[in-house]
Amino acid sequence: MEIFPVILCGGAGARLWPVSTAALPKPFIPLMDSRSLLQHTALRLTGLAGARAPVVVVGARHAALARRQLAEVGVEVFIIAEPEGRDSGPALTAAARWIARTDPRALVLAAASDHHIPDADAFRASVVAAAAAAEQGYIVTFGMKPNFPASAYGYIRPGDALDGGAAGRRVSAFVEKPDAAQAEACLAAGYLWNSGNFVFRADRLLADVALHAPAMDKAVSRAVDEGVAGEGLLELGSAFGGAPALSIDVAVMEKTAKAAVLEIDHAWSDLGSWDAVWAALDHDAAGNTVQARAVVVSSEGCFIRADAAARIVAVGLKKIAVVVQGDRILVCDLAASGQVLKDAVEQLGEA
Amino acid sequence: MEIFPVILCGGAGARLWPVSTAALPKPFIPLMDSRSLLQHTALRLTGLAGARAPVVVVGARHAALARRQLAEVGVEVFIIAEPEGRDSGPALTAAARWIARTDPRALVLAAASDHHIPDADAFRASVVAAAAAAEQGYIVTFGMKPNFPASAYGYIRPGDALDGGAAGRRVSAFVEKPDAAQAEACLAAGYLWNSGNFVFRADRLLADVALHAPAMDKAVSRAVDEGVAGEGLLELGSAFGGAPALSIDVAVMEKTAKAAVLEIDHAWSDLGSWDAVWAALDHDAAGNTVQARAVVVSSEGCFIRADAAARIVAVGLKKIAVVVQGDRILVCDLAASGQVLKDAVEQLGEA
Repeated sequence: MEIFPVILCGGAGARLWPVSTAALPKPFIPLMDSRSLLQHTALRLTGLAGARAPVVVVGARHAALARRQLAEVGVEVFIIAEPEGRDSGPALTAAARWIARTDPRALVLAAASDHHIPDADAFRASVVAAAAAAEQGYIVTFGMKPNFPASAYGYIRPGDALDGGAAGRRVSAFVEKPDAAQAEACLAAGYLWNSGNFVFRADRLLADVALHAPAMDKAVSRAVDEGVAGEGLLELGSAFGGAPALSIDVAVMEKTAKAAVLEIDHAWSDLGSWDAVWAALDHDAAGNTVQARAVVVSSEGCFIRADAAARIVAVGLKKIAVVVQGDRILVCDLAASGQVLKDAVEQLGEA
Repeated sequence: MEIFPVILCGGAGARLWPVSTAALPKPFIPLMDSRSLLQHTALRLTGLAGARAPVVVVGARHAALARRQLAEVGVEVFIIAEPEGRDSGPALTAAARWIARTDPRALVLAAASDHHIPDADAFRASVVAAAAAAEQGYIVTFGMKPNFPASAYGYIRPGDALDGGAAGRRVSAFVEKPDAAQAEACLAAGYLWNSGNFVFRADRLLADVALHAPAMDKAVSRAVDEGVAGEGLLELGSAFGGAPALSIDVAVMEKTAKAAVLEIDHAWSDLGSWDAVWAALDHDAAGNTVQARAVVVSSEGCFIRADAAARIVAVGLKKIAVVVQGDRILVCDLAASGQVLKDAVEQLGEA
């Protein structure tokens, strides 16, 4: 099975300020260990049997950094450089259109660049299962089996079995990020987390974009056609900026008749907040994760991370994040939402 | 009334790390406003009618800094430089012995250099009242009327009225820093906080030191006699290091028959922890005190202080101190004791 991985590497990632900034967004940061999230993602995808070189869709400002980081781990990529970020809909449409030039019926695996999936083998087995449904014309999204009633994720209600006997269910409904009570109900009803990772045939996605998001289709088509191609690189034309800034969920998945969901139950996190980062890391006996030169006393369930120069004393803290990057310092309730943090960072005059 | 102020300027002040360090201890820090605590103390004392130039007892390492800071606020001082810190007993004995050379019956006002007393006029009125008892041979300590059951201070139980009708009471007992339940009991029983500020006649103190702390008397006498005098300066001889390191409370006050306490009810704080510093400062409507460039969201009762370079985001914190000095960062429960903080700082390998 030949598959074309696409890595979506957009977004500023203010939810992980001060480590993630507009200058060095989350995918490029070594968050879990010494490798960046982008490096981990690329290695996970290139380990797929039949995988072509990944296409990375990234802001022009970070294209060289993406290529350099991936070269460091021995992964050669094709870069599609966006003149500006327009959310996942236009990014994925551009990648599908580029890949369709090689093979209109190419199977595409679209993956976020900044998620944490520790078991790469399990992930790859899921991709193979999803590919069977995608071959039949479904746009398959990965629905992660929830292990707690998260309010930070959207949910998917699985529906009927797929035609043709492939693994997966039709998508019965998408549920926006719920409040705590709704999240409990979603969990009880067997809903799945919407992970934002997909498998589809390029022609299928492009047909649905043309049908359900014609303005996006038009702007992106022109941006690809007028793009400047270089060695392993396509710089999208300025028409890209005219595409509506919509997620692929909103632009296509909520509208297409071919939306399918594959239930996945290996560990997964979008690392969308410091709470999520803490949860994905190992903890000491008191539930603390310390990535810093620090003395931590009488504290529980804390996440403490700092650069090499910092010296930290933490006393009497419960479920607090302390994150230090140079002279930028975050101290927050670990349960504070990424959105609240993002708003506060904007108020500080930084992003 | 002529009075000889003595300012005790020892101690490393690890309880206010990272702002206070061995290199720049607490008295030298502008903690409440743009003036250092030492500057405030000197101005408070020199405003006394009849006050002589203050004698500052300070570690030799910080003697020049003390003189420079006091010159900045127009206060000329006599410096007694300690070759090493030996607690308040030897420091006060040395100052009394030096002053006794001028006038054996001189009235001495011994004040900590790092306390916060916002109402200087009220303080000076208390000194005048204490001086009347001190003239009669009492060693008068300032007993601050407690307004909450603090565990961070020692307490004094006031006893009988003084002979001769001067304001004040005899000291019936000294109580070591109590636990929470004992502190409640002390408060209910009308005990006073032991502030570590005194008024006495030099000859009275020296007689009691000779009687109750003969080893201290001997070592300090020799250190003064063998000291090197310069312009406005006495560098104590090395014999000072042989004096027992004891507080004046332990060496003399708990033993002398002449201990008296004057009840004081103006505002006072020893600023002995970040909690105490926060309590002495103004707060916003949410109870936060912010001395930093910071965005503070959904937080209550917090103290946030940083140097000019730092940029802080604080979210969802309750009664937390965040204190930043260069790359040294403290995050703690505001109620954490100064002692716990001091121990943690030592564990970090800093003081």
